[in-house]
Amino acid sequence: MLTFSIDKSLTDSKARAGVITTDHGVIHTPIFMPVGTLGTVKGVHMHELRDDINAEIILGNTYHLYLRPGMDVIAQAGGLHKFNGWERPILTDSGGFQVFSLAANRKLTEEGAHFRSHIDGSKHLFTPENVVDIQRIIGSDIMMALDECTPGTAEYRYARKSLDLTKRWLERGWEHYKATAPLYGHYQAYFPIVQGCTYPDLRREAAAHVASLGADGNAIGGLAVGEPAEVMYEMIEVVNDVLPEDKPRYLMGVGTPINILEAIDRGVDMMDCVMPTRNGRNGMLFTPEGTMNMRNAKWAKDFSPLWPDGPSIVDRVYSKAYVRHLFASDELLAMQIASIHNLAFYLWLVRQAREHILHGDFHAWKEEMVKKLGRRL
Amino acid sequence: MLTFSIDKSLTDSKARAGVITTDHGVIHTPIFMPVGTLGTVKGVHMHELRDDINAEIILGNTYHLYLRPGMDVIAQAGGLHKFNGWERPILTDSGGFQVFSLAANRKLTEEGAHFRSHIDGSKHLFTPENVVDIQRIIGSDIMMALDECTPGTAEYRYARKSLDLTKRWLERGWEHYKATAPLYGHYQAYFPIVQGCTYPDLRREAAAHVASLGADGNAIGGLAVGEPAEVMYEMIEVVNDVLPEDKPRYLMGVGTPINILEAIDRGVDMMDCVMPTRNGRNGMLFTPEGTMNMRNAKWAKDFSPLWPDGPSIVDRVYSKAYVRHLFASDELLAMQIASIHNLAFYLWLVRQAREHILHGDFHAWKEEMVKKLGRRL
Repeated sequence: MLTFSIDKSLTDSKARAGVITTDHGVIHTPIFMPVGTLGTVKGVHMHELRDDINAEIILGNTYHLYLRPGMDVIAQAGGLHKFNGWERPILTDSGGFQVFSLAANRKLTEEGAHFRSHIDGSKHLFTPENVVDIQRIIGSDIMMALDECTPGTAEYRYARKSLDLTKRWLERGWEHYKATAPLYGHYQAYFPIVQGCTYPDLRREAAAHVASLGADGNAIGGLAVGEPAEVMYEMIEVVNDVLPEDKPRYLMGVGTPINILEAIDRGVDMMDCVMPTRNGRNGMLFTPEGTMNMRNAKWAKDFSPLWPDGPSIVDRVYSKAYVRHLFASDELLAMQIASIHNLAFYLWLVRQAREHILHGDFHAWKEEMVKKLGRRL
Repeated sequence: MLTFSIDKSLTDSKARAGVITTDHGVIHTPIFMPVGTLGTVKGVHMHELRDDINAEIILGNTYHLYLRPGMDVIAQAGGLHKFNGWERPILTDSGGFQVFSLAANRKLTEEGAHFRSHIDGSKHLFTPENVVDIQRIIGSDIMMALDECTPGTAEYRYARKSLDLTKRWLERGWEHYKATAPLYGHYQAYFPIVQGCTYPDLRREAAAHVASLGADGNAIGGLAVGEPAEVMYEMIEVVNDVLPEDKPRYLMGVGTPINILEAIDRGVDMMDCVMPTRNGRNGMLFTPEGTMNMRNAKWAKDFSPLWPDGPSIVDRVYSKAYVRHLFASDELLAMQIASIHNLAFYLWLVRQAREHILHGDFHAWKEEMVKKLGRRL
């Protein structure tokens, strides 16, 4: 089973500190989940994720894993945990988002999402039912429902129609989830996703529909897809007023360190984003005092450690000058160091948030942090 | 000081097990030295090199470090050890080899090697004297003399002229070495290099000249540069008959696992090569039973560990199928795993060689290993 208990709630904030228990171990919330697109968090070893970054759960992308290595390989391996050696919880998305952002010739019908592979052009169909089957084969601890991720700039009429389709798909997926069993002996939860674009009435309706299922946890999708941050925050508030308090809330694909803290402040428990690894590979390092562009010549002779009392070994043993040299020379190690550092920073940030929730001063601490996190050093 | 002691010699082989002691620690010979071109062994963290691969010494390339990050940065850092955080011994080449293989508009004169940077086209000059000064700034434990690396296919007349220049450069470099002092308080040795192409008389003459200096160690250069392997082995024998027994012998830039064992059998103590990391990045893994091309579909469903009782964590936790998937998906982690695995294998191979020398059965063991190492699995 997947259970959720709340250790502490606050009066001046919707933030809460909780614990999710899965068959692959516990997750302390609020939590950030590194993205392991193809069964690997880019540039990071599994033992680094576990022992140095202290990730408690990672993501896999159903769309990517379905195409490569493919379901026959994952099935023969005995699921993704066995295939990639990650023994802690795994969450998989439904693949819908990548169909829209990556695949060619995609087309939605009542049946599902038709698309061609971005790799070899082969034809495929994702349905609410078969993405449950695929995630059963992957063996993720938390599976996601197939939905249409409505663009943040969609007009009301389109958003209305899109939500109706997402709701029908959700009901089909939920029935199929209940009618199927795990393949590897461990429990798999199924999270429905609240869509509704930037329209409060649609968001409320979607949240009520999602809440009515009584799933183990609920997700908020379709945010950070083009709308202003303030609108995203407003939508989180609208949705979290409706979603049940006693189930974890997962904000999908968000975001900057500031977004993370603002979402926690509004009652979000789980988040994921490619930003720490993707921006890291481009030379951007997040720190408690703001961001550093490591390609900048200003670091060329700064021999101080990246972050002297930082949580990761890379923070303490490598200097800014050395990392700047590695980026200037396009060395692989530059991307490795930046990816580990940024993930360790994101995990540090949510652990700090949790400590401050438990201590009761989260809101004041968040206000101070938000002033610093957006600076460019 | 740099000292060398021999723990064991053999009667049926020139192989010997020894210990080199430097101010940054001891090196057990025969040893393989991972190449850290720009102050980083590509794709590998310093702590992985130290704790997992168990490298006892790494290389830096003077040409590369001189251009990036440049001598002002290295000097302000307090040398390469401080800059990159590697606390064990470092050996640097003289930069001559890269001038010929990488730089544009290179030209040799009596004074030295004129070249333009392959990065920005800027003009530079390496002389026997200033490459000592540069390596003093880098602070390597073992510095190398500037030489002309004669192509393996050179005619006698050219090889003769080239060796004469190398000998004059060596005398100038040696004088400058003796006239200068370390900058950081630790001892720096200076190894002369035997050239002479594939001509036994030139090789003997060069070895005698090199031996006459009484340096802390001696190197054999200009091999594995186009000549057949048998010719390389013959040249090693010719040279090692002349080089002193009581000083370490370093065979530069060699080679395959078989080359490594054949060189050890002929009295070589130190080797380096980019092959484990470069071939690793392309998907080739070396094992005791032969090589594996990890892009090959034959590994797609082989869920056994890379090397179940291998020396590195990557050998034991990642399966062939997973690594094959990472290469097929062009994931960074593929290159990281292959680089670590191959370096750990090379270090395992020389440790095994040392054990068999101590045990007295090196030659027979080598004959068996050579039959297997060249196979394609």
